[in-house]
Amino acid sequence: MKDFVFNVDTKIIFGENQLSELGKEIKKYGKKVLLCYGGGSIKKNGIYDDITGELKKDGIEYVELSGIEPNPRVDSAREGLKIARENKVDFILAVGGGSVVDLAKLISGAYYLDVDPWQVVLDSSKIEKALPIGVVLTIAATGTEMDPFSVITNLETKEKLSFASDLVLPVFSFMNPKYTFTVPEKHTVAGVCDIMSHTMENYFSLGDGCYFQNKLSEGLLKTCIKYGPILKKDPKNYEARANIMWASTWAINGLLDSGKSTSWSVHPMEHELSAFFDITHGTGLAILTPRWLEHCLDEERQETIGNFARNVFDVKEEDDLKAAKEGIKKLYEFFENLGVPMSLRQVGIEEDKLKEMADLAVEHAGGKIKGFKTLYGEDVYQIYKASF
Amino acid sequence: MKDFVFNVDTKIIFGENQLSELGKEIKKYGKKVLLCYGGGSIKKNGIYDDITGELKKDGIEYVELSGIEPNPRVDSAREGLKIARENKVDFILAVGGGSVVDLAKLISGAYYLDVDPWQVVLDSSKIEKALPIGVVLTIAATGTEMDPFSVITNLETKEKLSFASDLVLPVFSFMNPKYTFTVPEKHTVAGVCDIMSHTMENYFSLGDGCYFQNKLSEGLLKTCIKYGPILKKDPKNYEARANIMWASTWAINGLLDSGKSTSWSVHPMEHELSAFFDITHGTGLAILTPRWLEHCLDEERQETIGNFARNVFDVKEEDDLKAAKEGIKKLYEFFENLGVPMSLRQVGIEEDKLKEMADLAVEHAGGKIKGFKTLYGEDVYQIYKASF
Repeated sequence: MKDFVFNVDTKIIFGENQLSELGKEIKKYGKKVLLCYGGGSIKKNGIYDDITGELKKDGIEYVELSGIEPNPRVDSAREGLKIARENKVDFILAVGGGSVVDLAKLISGAYYLDVDPWQVVLDSSKIEKALPIGVVLTIAATGTEMDPFSVITNLETKEKLSFASDLVLPVFSFMNPKYTFTVPEKHTVAGVCDIMSHTMENYFSLGDGCYFQNKLSEGLLKTCIKYGPILKKDPKNYEARANIMWASTWAINGLLDSGKSTSWSVHPMEHELSAFFDITHGTGLAILTPRWLEHCLDEERQETIGNFARNVFDVKEEDDLKAAKEGIKKLYEFFENLGVPMSLRQVGIEEDKLKEMADLAVEHAGGKIKGFKTLYGEDVYQIYKASF
Repeated sequence: MKDFVFNVDTKIIFGENQLSELGKEIKKYGKKVLLCYGGGSIKKNGIYDDITGELKKDGIEYVELSGIEPNPRVDSAREGLKIARENKVDFILAVGGGSVVDLAKLISGAYYLDVDPWQVVLDSSKIEKALPIGVVLTIAATGTEMDPFSVITNLETKEKLSFASDLVLPVFSFMNPKYTFTVPEKHTVAGVCDIMSHTMENYFSLGDGCYFQNKLSEGLLKTCIKYGPILKKDPKNYEARANIMWASTWAINGLLDSGKSTSWSVHPMEHELSAFFDITHGTGLAILTPRWLEHCLDEERQETIGNFARNVFDVKEEDDLKAAKEGIKKLYEFFENLGVPMSLRQVGIEEDKLKEMADLAVEHAGGKIKGFKTLYGEDVYQIYKASF
């Protein structure tokens, strides 16, 4: 186990009867809010009214940035910064999922800087001060509600890049499982895939002595395997929504990879796909992950993948290689049964772009993807082809 | 899953090469430190020199409160408060395990109040302001390094009572697994028992829909089951010390019982034993837990205990009652093989005090212990007798 620091101090306010605390929490930090949200679903399902009602009740002024898109774009951050600066806001309230919160993080980090926000994505060490952010989460997926990460897309440069800064960590997150009842099936499923991917990116490593963290990861994966299918049938199942929502937070907030040094593999590969073709992130991850594991499967890694199969999918096979193969198959089938389109072709990726995307994936990772198994351009290309 | 708030913002600085950050962390909060420690083992194993060296390096003044005993006593808090006030300290650095940190928490909470510290234990809502505390942990057991709880003994009144206040939560905790290399076998084992007990107190509940939390608990218990026996044979095994140490923090910091409403059962029963006879807390917990589970085992609870047996001890039995019985047996044997004296008689408890202690245990819990199964005085007496 490597040395590490764990310091994630977002206050989580979880449950169905908590929103009346919103004004009180905001007032600890500010009194004029930039309210960020997406395409307007929160107006249909009543969440917008709930929140603006609370703000009005507590006499908190707000201005709005709406229309933040999936795979949020740097253009929206430019627009948000303009509104925030013109109105001298002192707090950002992000109401939505990963896209809205990630975009809010960029506005937060760029607010006090005199540079284009894309420069902040490229070099987040510029951030020395940030606007405080609070979150009302409406979809369980990215874990952004309790982590310092943000992923932003630049369609002009065809780049989808992440940045991190402890200064943009949300100060609080309200997590009401009922607010996820109306998430469409496709995005519920993609969220489950995203959560599982974060967990597996943290989990797959070679002999780092982090047994405790890996046992937690296995428990988190089992939670997704139990409740994912339930949500498909019964999207208003509170227990299922609550378990998936709480699991999503812990998949990526630093606990599961505390003491580990493995870099992520599947996310860098997926980011190219959605930067080029704007596909749903979780779907891309689910398509790639089983193919990535197959590509990694060798004598050195078969025990790790075999244990994954036994501990997560209850595979009984004692032979590591056979167990590993069965586990990968079960993972594929799990995603397929959830209704994920399990090939790149089905989600509109064009075959003649695979090589270019593979080369860019490793270029953005600094020449190679150093994860569970080091991947070069050719490896990524093979994984894309196997996923096509 | 019930509504809850999770807000545990202790900064964890974990590993073997982190202590050079100590001065920097302290200076965020103060410049004159009350250094609290126990019976002097930190002088033998070099930890005292490490720490005072860091304080001197960074020009931080300190005064000392030494000799804090296991099952720390309110008298030591009185002494510490006198030293702290006379020297106008602005920070408390607790170097030790649960006893030292818990005592430091009482000094912290009582510092600004004009009442005897026992009054603070009896009513911690009095605390409105507290001295900040930092921790250098030297034993993995109580989880006090990242929680708001403290347990204090009053030998005059024969009471061992806990209090909680978010204001006494440590602001940072340095956790170096090597600092636990010299913990004697008896206390290493008692620590593992304590960690497992916290986890099981959180775990055993009826149908609360907290599957995710319970899966994490099972992973934490498996970590103890894997590394407890390794530490017995090889106390300087870094991986084992690190896993146990990190697990100890998460057994009780609020994650495993987030969304749960079950009260603890075994701790209130054990607190009477160590208030009367000053026995080792973890040992008392290990003796009582299997007998408590046997006492709870009925038609309503056999599935929960059966799942525990299957998921934690890999019991293959499909019948719940049989599985539950086998799981309880395996838990008993696990403690016994670790070298825990598995009867109250062996640790010096007197049989003729059982009834009095049982009555007081429920009295301190408000007339009954409302946990996995509600326990009245007669229940506690039966569990004590079965443990004798």
